[in-house]
Amino acid sequence: MSLDSVLIIGGGLIGSSIARAAKAYGQAEKVYISDKSSSACDAIERLGFADGVAENSPELYASQADLIILCVPPGRIGEVAQQVIPVMKAGAILSDVGSIKGDVIKQIKPHLRDDIHFVPGHPIAGTEFSGPEAGFAEMFRDRWCILTPEEGVSTAATAALKKFWQGIGSDVAIMSPERHDIVLATTSHVPHLIAYTLVGTAVDMEEVTQSEVVKYSAGGFRDFTRIAASDPVMWRDVFLANKDATLEVVDRFIEDLSALKRAIRWQDGEALLEHFAKTRDVRRKIVDAGQDSAEPNFGRND
Amino acid sequence: MSLDSVLIIGGGLIGSSIARAAKAYGQAEKVYISDKSSSACDAIERLGFADGVAENSPELYASQADLIILCVPPGRIGEVAQQVIPVMKAGAILSDVGSIKGDVIKQIKPHLRDDIHFVPGHPIAGTEFSGPEAGFAEMFRDRWCILTPEEGVSTAATAALKKFWQGIGSDVAIMSPERHDIVLATTSHVPHLIAYTLVGTAVDMEEVTQSEVVKYSAGGFRDFTRIAASDPVMWRDVFLANKDATLEVVDRFIEDLSALKRAIRWQDGEALLEHFAKTRDVRRKIVDAGQDSAEPNFGRND
Repeated sequence: MSLDSVLIIGGGLIGSSIARAAKAYGQAEKVYISDKSSSACDAIERLGFADGVAENSPELYASQADLIILCVPPGRIGEVAQQVIPVMKAGAILSDVGSIKGDVIKQIKPHLRDDIHFVPGHPIAGTEFSGPEAGFAEMFRDRWCILTPEEGVSTAATAALKKFWQGIGSDVAIMSPERHDIVLATTSHVPHLIAYTLVGTAVDMEEVTQSEVVKYSAGGFRDFTRIAASDPVMWRDVFLANKDATLEVVDRFIEDLSALKRAIRWQDGEALLEHFAKTRDVRRKIVDAGQDSAEPNFGRND
Repeated sequence: MSLDSVLIIGGGLIGSSIARAAKAYGQAEKVYISDKSSSACDAIERLGFADGVAENSPELYASQADLIILCVPPGRIGEVAQQVIPVMKAGAILSDVGSIKGDVIKQIKPHLRDDIHFVPGHPIAGTEFSGPEAGFAEMFRDRWCILTPEEGVSTAATAALKKFWQGIGSDVAIMSPERHDIVLATTSHVPHLIAYTLVGTAVDMEEVTQSEVVKYSAGGFRDFTRIAASDPVMWRDVFLANKDATLEVVDRFIEDLSALKRAIRWQDGEALLEHFAKTRDVRRKIVDAGQDSAEPNFGRND
């Protein structure tokens, strides 16, 4: 199974990074992009990393693509799938990069054909910026990409997609959509929800001015604002689509926060210390696993 | 008022950075350090940035110092103040770097003398590392330092301390201890408490293995682990000492989180979007104010 032609639908941060990486690392002969925004299409043409750009008409390239990757916000994925699946060529692979898998599969399934291979995917990578200008070819290097094929899907198709992601620098893990959704609720969705909440709480404090929040943000707050600057439309869709897992993890978080609140109220220093000491170890493991920089302050000391 | 001689008590991350900066930027002729740990004293002597090191005996240099800065954990500050204040020379300045001001003042006040000048301080700077090896002279450059002198304190002493901090690169703000404590609860203490809580929640999830949390941390979680890797003893003391302001801000945070939970449960996308959109603006202001890097991912893209 060769990847002569790849179509990326949605040329934003992730889509444009896949396109750049596929070309830079020689994982596809031709890379085409479709995007519904004309300004995004103009930017992609100007940046010159695609072999063809189609404004809001993915069907233009869909019939020749060996692999189509849907890189649109989760809320639009069903509509886009309905548009391209009928014109896909037999034997082609359909994938996506959605941050939730259960809901994406539910949206796409009604439109599937027996002669194409649907292998959902999710690269655990990104930055707080959006749009085609923000993408870069090294986005996926040493980051994990999770594939969640259902039982009965062609192992050759899964293997081909795995090879593609490995070819652009990713490690690839395969798991069930249900497992993906609870793991990501823990490591990504709830952290984002909490960052959005905290930044909102600070901005709304009547006792503290916004300029004070900005001035003294180096005390910890600024790290939250980076996460809370991520694309709001995408994250709205993620929380709505991964409702159950998100609410479960949030509830556990609130329980734990209540226990720490109680320890503060009752001046129980031992309980606080016990809790805080165990979190240092996780940090070390993340740095050892190459998933973060060990530079203090992420290297922003001066 | 000249600063011929400065004594730093507690040669950890912040204390050792002040010592390095005072020498590097020529803000003191002589810089002495006292630390209760012999291994820290050995490290400071080896690193060679102090003119003298006293193991657990601050009174050795206290009588000649024009400025003494207490850089010990907030929980130990009363005990150290009691030890050095009686031997300080008349007219000298006593300050500190504690992350809370109300409680520090309460601890120090009973030991004060009429002929010394007490000007509490708090530099809003730091990294997730601890100990004298982790310090560096540029720590305070373009960061704010807040001074909270009580009414009646010598304006000359406050001005001298302000000049010292400006001399090592800081901007200096002056406010009341009460205002400091609610501002910092918002921008620093509660963000740290939440980061510690979330990392603990993730580690305790039975449904998700620790190795999964580590592998997929680039989805957002890793930023929390950096903050939650900060010195546990210091943060325990901070939360215990700034109890009221911390609990007030945490309660508002939980209210806001509950509202977002409700929006997710009732699939109210508009409420989520409205909340998320306002947080991007704060990020921009922080970057514009030079309090964070605009590099995506803090420059750790590859």
